[in-house]
Amino acid sequence: MNFIKVVGHKWAENKFVCVGLDPVWDKLPQHLTSDSEKEGDPDVIFQFCKGIIDATKDIANSFKPNTAFYEAYGTDGMIALERVCEYIQATTDVPIILDFKRGDIGNTNLGSARFAFDVLGVDAVTVQPYLGKVAMQAFLDHADKGIIVLCKTSNEGSDEVQSQSLGVDGVKLYEYVAKQVSDTWNANNNCLLVVGATYPKELADVRAIVGDMPILVPGIGAQGGDLEATLHAGLVYGSLDGLIINSSRGIIYASSGEDFPDAARAETQKLNNEINAIREVMRLAA
Amino acid sequence: MNFIKVVGHKWAENKFVCVGLDPVWDKLPQHLTSDSEKEGDPDVIFQFCKGIIDATKDIANSFKPNTAFYEAYGTDGMIALERVCEYIQATTDVPIILDFKRGDIGNTNLGSARFAFDVLGVDAVTVQPYLGKVAMQAFLDHADKGIIVLCKTSNEGSDEVQSQSLGVDGVKLYEYVAKQVSDTWNANNNCLLVVGATYPKELADVRAIVGDMPILVPGIGAQGGDLEATLHAGLVYGSLDGLIINSSRGIIYASSGEDFPDAARAETQKLNNEINAIREVMRLAA
Repeated sequence: MNFIKVVGHKWAENKFVCVGLDPVWDKLPQHLTSDSEKEGDPDVIFQFCKGIIDATKDIANSFKPNTAFYEAYGTDGMIALERVCEYIQATTDVPIILDFKRGDIGNTNLGSARFAFDVLGVDAVTVQPYLGKVAMQAFLDHADKGIIVLCKTSNEGSDEVQSQSLGVDGVKLYEYVAKQVSDTWNANNNCLLVVGATYPKELADVRAIVGDMPILVPGIGAQGGDLEATLHAGLVYGSLDGLIINSSRGIIYASSGEDFPDAARAETQKLNNEINAIREVMRLAA
Repeated sequence: MNFIKVVGHKWAENKFVCVGLDPVWDKLPQHLTSDSEKEGDPDVIFQFCKGIIDATKDIANSFKPNTAFYEAYGTDGMIALERVCEYIQATTDVPIILDFKRGDIGNTNLGSARFAFDVLGVDAVTVQPYLGKVAMQAFLDHADKGIIVLCKTSNEGSDEVQSQSLGVDGVKLYEYVAKQVSDTWNANNNCLLVVGATYPKELADVRAIVGDMPILVPGIGAQGGDLEATLHAGLVYGSLDGLIINSSRGIIYASSGEDFPDAARAETQKLNNEINAIREVMRLAA
């Protein structure tokens, strides 16, 4: 399947929320961890993710495991990650974004591409822009996979490098990255960008540069991004889609009790409803 | 132990070569892979790395496994990587650089730092500069570990982003990164930079900016970097140290026969001898 097309189908069903599957041992429901002998027990991590997946698969736009939360537990984490991806593929029609933010020289990126697309079989990956397009060809060559390039990240301090002004025109680095990805990296029409909800002005800048290229937006929820400002800045004019709105902590840790799947579903539904309500206001105002 | 101090001891013993432990199944000696039932068999990968480690531990400056070559085999690769790190720690005094080029928001980087420093117990890591210092604090806080920031990478096409000129002064992005790391990221005196041997002019620029900050230099060997130009551009004036010269493919695949450890040792020794011969000429000319 083609990742961008599948995401388009989800948007057509008014599904905009990407559920981040980022297990942190100390935050997992105690009834899951209490019987376990070791932190990072893959059975526990899998059971937690399974609960979230089962409860949100019919309303989620996408699932996004971030590898850092799994590698924190070494081999155990890798076992859990393989099971989580396998389970999503076996029981849902929801695409998987592997948030691994890789970026190395070309020969080395082949290993990471193999990990993502052959071992785990995911539908999209996040990557770094710093090495440049030639190095990232190992990812870009996978025409049906989504290649999601970091552009303006949601964290405090992302200005230090990303908002440096280039040349005499004062184009910011994140704008240059957006333009490069749009103009030259995207020969297979499989590129997306990451722009944080914590920077709505920059999101509007990027949207103006990249036309209707899909944008993955972290930073709603725990990080404090403003949803309305994000949608006004980033939705594609006319179709009012083009954004994948991620929430991780806000959804998966909504409850630490046995009802955590229901709570995760409620938070996903709530966020998705808010998105569609704002879209409806925008549609009526257009 | 403090990574930069340990590397300093290795330099004092005239050891400059970092041996890259990057296993690629199809390139492994056939006598190791022929009996194996599966590509990526952790026993085979470990045996290969063990052969290299045993043969070079008394002459190497450092060992550098790149995680991409292990994650290519999923859980099997992670099992191999854990065994490789454990073996180096148990049988050598050579520091380990985990080349994983991570870079995410702060909360997420905690997972990767845990992977590197708690699970694997390595002495240094490579990281991306794009997210900025605030996000990378999760790594920088580990005062005794080496935090090696990508500055000017060895690959073709690294100019696309890294050599963009900033502002009206025309400072290049890689120079800005070098200055930021030197001026503000390095509060714990634990930072290093990556500059590729394929860009000796840029290496000289960076050396002029960062004083005696250690620099990890990939790109010698298979990538075609010029050793003499690299040393002239990058060695610290006076001490004639300050560079960790990496070679991976040129060493570990020097032979595909049963003599691969001897061949790896010979290549490591040869490269190290060349480095010290050039240093001697520079010393006499000073």
